[in-house]
Amino acid sequence: MYYLGIDLGGTNIAAGLVSADGKVMRKDSIPTRREADYRELVKDMAALMRKLLKDAGVREEEVKGVGIGSPGILDEKKGILIYASNLQNLKGAPLVSEMEKYVNCPVYLGNDANVAALAESEAGAARGSRHSVTVTLGTGVGSGAVIDGKIYSGFNGAALELGHMVIVVDGEPCGCGRKGCWETYASATALVRQTRKAAREHPESMVNKLVDGDLSKINGRTAFDAARQGDEVGKLLVEQYIKYVAEGLINIISIFMPEVLVLGGGICNEGEYLLNPLKEHVLKRFTNYVLPLTEIRLAQMGNDAGIVGAAMLAKTAKEGG
Amino acid sequence: MYYLGIDLGGTNIAAGLVSADGKVMRKDSIPTRREADYRELVKDMAALMRKLLKDAGVREEEVKGVGIGSPGILDEKKGILIYASNLQNLKGAPLVSEMEKYVNCPVYLGNDANVAALAESEAGAARGSRHSVTVTLGTGVGSGAVIDGKIYSGFNGAALELGHMVIVVDGEPCGCGRKGCWETYASATALVRQTRKAAREHPESMVNKLVDGDLSKINGRTAFDAARQGDEVGKLLVEQYIKYVAEGLINIISIFMPEVLVLGGGICNEGEYLLNPLKEHVLKRFTNYVLPLTEIRLAQMGNDAGIVGAAMLAKTAKEGG
Repeated sequence: MYYLGIDLGGTNIAAGLVSADGKVMRKDSIPTRREADYRELVKDMAALMRKLLKDAGVREEEVKGVGIGSPGILDEKKGILIYASNLQNLKGAPLVSEMEKYVNCPVYLGNDANVAALAESEAGAARGSRHSVTVTLGTGVGSGAVIDGKIYSGFNGAALELGHMVIVVDGEPCGCGRKGCWETYASATALVRQTRKAAREHPESMVNKLVDGDLSKINGRTAFDAARQGDEVGKLLVEQYIKYVAEGLINIISIFMPEVLVLGGGICNEGEYLLNPLKEHVLKRFTNYVLPLTEIRLAQMGNDAGIVGAAMLAKTAKEGG
Repeated sequence: MYYLGIDLGGTNIAAGLVSADGKVMRKDSIPTRREADYRELVKDMAALMRKLLKDAGVREEEVKGVGIGSPGILDEKKGILIYASNLQNLKGAPLVSEMEKYVNCPVYLGNDANVAALAESEAGAARGSRHSVTVTLGTGVGSGAVIDGKIYSGFNGAALELGHMVIVVDGEPCGCGRKGCWETYASATALVRQTRKAAREHPESMVNKLVDGDLSKINGRTAFDAARQGDEVGKLLVEQYIKYVAEGLINIISIFMPEVLVLGGGICNEGEYLLNPLKEHVLKRFTNYVLPLTEIRLAQMGNDAGIVGAAMLAKTAKEGG
């Protein structure tokens, strides 16, 4: 028994044939024809699926469900993509009903951050838990929650905007219109901004040397690299960044008390160097805590999160229904 | 078919015979014998229940479940009260197994803030919704969430500490050890603190007149009363307080996207005067929002929230199991 997961992105459409326990049996991808209309794009997806099945030697009857993970604002229940900034042609597209023309199994639609959380829950770092939250520290801060084994997305499908939880009232302005959102302190973008600011204020620091004085070369690793080499400015940057990430994580734990809190995104390539101080901050808050406490783990699904999560969306929806 | 709800408090034990649709058929209460051990207290509860049934003319077989709502830290699954600051003698008390000695139906234990949220969901302001969050602005900020018709309390029973969500990193110190928790800005206690501070800084203000210059008389209504009479200091206080409450509510909506967000607690006696500006803040954040949005409503259960919620705990646990 298999599930098909489709990861719809602005650049590529990836698809994977996934086993019931979340293993990718075969995957493939094609470029997203952004100029095409939704019927053509769904046709592309269907062709990609057929090719996958053929290459894997699996009959269509063996596929019990298809899941589509998509960015943007969705009407999950109706299976419609309402709006996605990098998929303008798909505005209002009834992706699920269109896809159902090509397959004989049920089709489900889910937000990309939510399906990534489901992938970690079913086959990754939170495997075996009933409640988990996955947070991705990338360009923004993405997040999804799995409650009782299923994605929780609120009554309108748009819950879990943890990146837009304000942690500093009247703080840094955010693209969403609010001020002081967690994302403006804890995303890779925020760390780059903080690093550039420090580099301008401390031209003598290792941070500047690492980029040969070209501040446009600063990325999410620069401050960590400087800190690891003992640079004071780098150490302060990392300390401050980790503090803000920790404040958000402690909020999430206080709110959800998930069994596992999964951390993903580019910044997590820092591994233990990031994870250990974060855990310390959290433990400090919960000193003498008498109940079992959330475990914080690094994400395991990497680039497969999208296709595995989409496939598991089909699996968990079937189980629930 | 009835359920019995027990609201265990530091001062009184209240109990109610509740119908399946959350109506209180009969209620009664006794003082909490705080010096007694848990066996004696559970015996008191059992006697109170028997009296209720007798007074209501209901046979014990008609009671399908008993729920106990309790303050403090609980092990809900094992039915044990781990620790409650105003019920010291109940430390480690196996309330559920002890109560099961007296009744022939299942007994359930739940946190008092959580059962209050369940009461609003089953019979109050959030009736008819599947997902709701209830927030109580009182001495502290209490909260509970109902997800898919059941209390959500995380993997360890201690989730939904929304009052301890930090909204100002390094802000006002909180009793929990963190700084800038929502509770330190949005509780009635916080408003009293803010009002006293303003009264000291502006001795000429209406706030001072309302309490005849005796700042110890300031309570959660003082600033609102002054504002309603046109006092500038009062208006600023109310505006600032409402802003902080709103920042937390917007966080909660962004995180949970509940169908209904219920607001309770003493401050809510201000009614529309509090609710309308709060709604404005929220709508401003979600301008042009294309999805249906959370409704904010005032709590309806009042003092019955504890007994109805405890009774509904027994009802929803039975439905789920």
